[in-house]
Amino acid sequence: MELTRRQMIQAAGTLGVATLTGVGPRSAFGQGQSSGAPNKKVGWAILGLGGYALNQILPNMKFCQHGAPVALISGSPDKAKATAAAYGIKESMIFNYDNMDRIKDVAEIDVVYVITPPGTHRDFTIRALQAGKHVCCEKPMASSAKDCEAMIAAAKRAKRLLQIGYRCHFEPNNLEAMRICRAGEIGQIRTIRSDHAFTMGWDNGWHSKKGLGGFGAISEIGIYSINALCYLAGEDPIEIFGTRDKVKADRFKDVEDVNHFNLKFPGGAQGVGMTGYSWNANNFRAYGDRGQIDAEPATGYGGHNFRKNGQPFRVEPANMWALQMDDLSRAILDSSRILKTPGEMGLRDIRIIEAVLQSADTGKSVRFSPTA
Amino acid sequence: MELTRRQMIQAAGTLGVATLTGVGPRSAFGQGQSSGAPNKKVGWAILGLGGYALNQILPNMKFCQHGAPVALISGSPDKAKATAAAYGIKESMIFNYDNMDRIKDVAEIDVVYVITPPGTHRDFTIRALQAGKHVCCEKPMASSAKDCEAMIAAAKRAKRLLQIGYRCHFEPNNLEAMRICRAGEIGQIRTIRSDHAFTMGWDNGWHSKKGLGGFGAISEIGIYSINALCYLAGEDPIEIFGTRDKVKADRFKDVEDVNHFNLKFPGGAQGVGMTGYSWNANNFRAYGDRGQIDAEPATGYGGHNFRKNGQPFRVEPANMWALQMDDLSRAILDSSRILKTPGEMGLRDIRIIEAVLQSADTGKSVRFSPTA
Repeated sequence: MELTRRQMIQAAGTLGVATLTGVGPRSAFGQGQSSGAPNKKVGWAILGLGGYALNQILPNMKFCQHGAPVALISGSPDKAKATAAAYGIKESMIFNYDNMDRIKDVAEIDVVYVITPPGTHRDFTIRALQAGKHVCCEKPMASSAKDCEAMIAAAKRAKRLLQIGYRCHFEPNNLEAMRICRAGEIGQIRTIRSDHAFTMGWDNGWHSKKGLGGFGAISEIGIYSINALCYLAGEDPIEIFGTRDKVKADRFKDVEDVNHFNLKFPGGAQGVGMTGYSWNANNFRAYGDRGQIDAEPATGYGGHNFRKNGQPFRVEPANMWALQMDDLSRAILDSSRILKTPGEMGLRDIRIIEAVLQSADTGKSVRFSPTA
Repeated sequence: MELTRRQMIQAAGTLGVATLTGVGPRSAFGQGQSSGAPNKKVGWAILGLGGYALNQILPNMKFCQHGAPVALISGSPDKAKATAAAYGIKESMIFNYDNMDRIKDVAEIDVVYVITPPGTHRDFTIRALQAGKHVCCEKPMASSAKDCEAMIAAAKRAKRLLQIGYRCHFEPNNLEAMRICRAGEIGQIRTIRSDHAFTMGWDNGWHSKKGLGGFGAISEIGIYSINALCYLAGEDPIEIFGTRDKVKADRFKDVEDVNHFNLKFPGGAQGVGMTGYSWNANNFRAYGDRGQIDAEPATGYGGHNFRKNGQPFRVEPANMWALQMDDLSRAILDSSRILKTPGEMGLRDIRIIEAVLQSADTGKSVRFSPTA
């Protein structure tokens, strides 16, 4: 079931930005269970207390208008206790990975935010959905398209919402870049390129571990390029070519290090991305036939530097994390709202990664459909 | 006949920069006919008086230490006369495309610099070689690898030198970028990307004409990306993938507009390039595993802006056009010298273009050899 492109653009218009194709309709998930009262704050449980949860998500939740942290789910009791104290969360609202299914009886929890290594996303997401909770799952959504599909199916069965943590869809500079591209202000988009990479050492925890790290650099950091190529093109690719190299096969034997990819879009734009664990990069550029957008850094936590034809963007600052979480909270509170970054977007990007790797293996371009 | 890589690097070392693979040996061409006296100035005939000849080559020849303009070959008598007067060239040294073969009897002419539309390079180059003259041919070398091979064969038969006008091999910032990459100063090179494009209107003369414009944007401006990917990688690619789009097929029905390409290098680097007639771009970036080089503008006539890990390059200014022409003049005067940008480099780049288009047609990557 798909909204028409026009319906989606209309719906997204209420948020001040066009949405993307490949985004499933709000109605497919049924309506949220929570009260529709606009002043109610949605209760969030944070699952996984790693760096991103502790340094970005929890500190920025105070800027949420429609949600607040009410519970923690963690494998580290001491860390959970200290974190609960810091954020005014009751000790009775600390759960671990063994007893987390009990949250089904905890009415204060509306949403679980899954912020664990990629290989664990599927199981935690499905458990949270089966406990009757909505889920925000951090990107990359999972380690395979099959897992993503299982997560989406679980959300449909549970009649709960599934959001993927694509914070750039709430970041003002990136939103302005999307707007400029959609409005035709740099003409017809012909080429978009994006490099996202970071240097990864030997002692890298879950990142390069089979079963935990997802696909490697392409899903951990390259996914920013993949997602940006799509949101700047404003559509999903129809043909994909990918490459890999295994220069550091000793270090990254179970995951990808360097991948390049070319995405052909139906409107005529081509996107190209480069990613890896062997250098640092965070940028994109969109070339239209009447101008260009340059972004570097493009998708970091701060310091965004965006230019249109050399002139810096002027945008109002905003807290992308709070806006992302509020987008889910608001969709829970108001069933007429459409999620901007639903599970289908996460699935699309994982499908793209799988197509890149298939192409790299075969040396042939791959026909692509986000829903095939 | 090929020099070993070590021999070439040694030879190039005398010029202060490593040369490239795929570069034929000086000795394959036999020795120059001209006097070996170091103070003799080599006599250059300029063939074709378009914008590049009038605005770049002729004005910069006064900075040549080893050559000087002594003749013009042009289809425009009035333009030739005025230009001859401006550069102190005798009227008797003006030739046209009908009578140019008479230059074989003009001892003052050592070299012909072919600066006409790409589709004419082969015939003019071969005529000049058959007249016993050395040739500098502007890039792109020709409209097909077959034509390039015919030009190289003609040079060998005539025992004359054939240089291609790759001025960036003489530009101090580009030379410093090559040096940094070779010296390992940014570690192992993993990804190089380069965008070269310019906006082409409807009324574009020879550029998009079949038989004159070469392959289109990829040979006219994309060749800077192709050449840069190779000189930054320091080797020739072994596998190539390419794409095209035909969004503006009405305007560019006989030539390419947009092409993307991925070049895999044997040492583990991957290069990616983007070109077209639908936007403006002039840049490259090399990512090593210990740093990066950023260049924008990278290969223009001036304004080069190069950075290593964010710090601007410090190089002595130099006149790339004069150095390029002097490289040929010196090789004519001293048979022990190896040309930095010989016909084989031009052939390699045209072969790469043909591989890009073959891949774009088939959707498959193409195994590549510069000499196959």
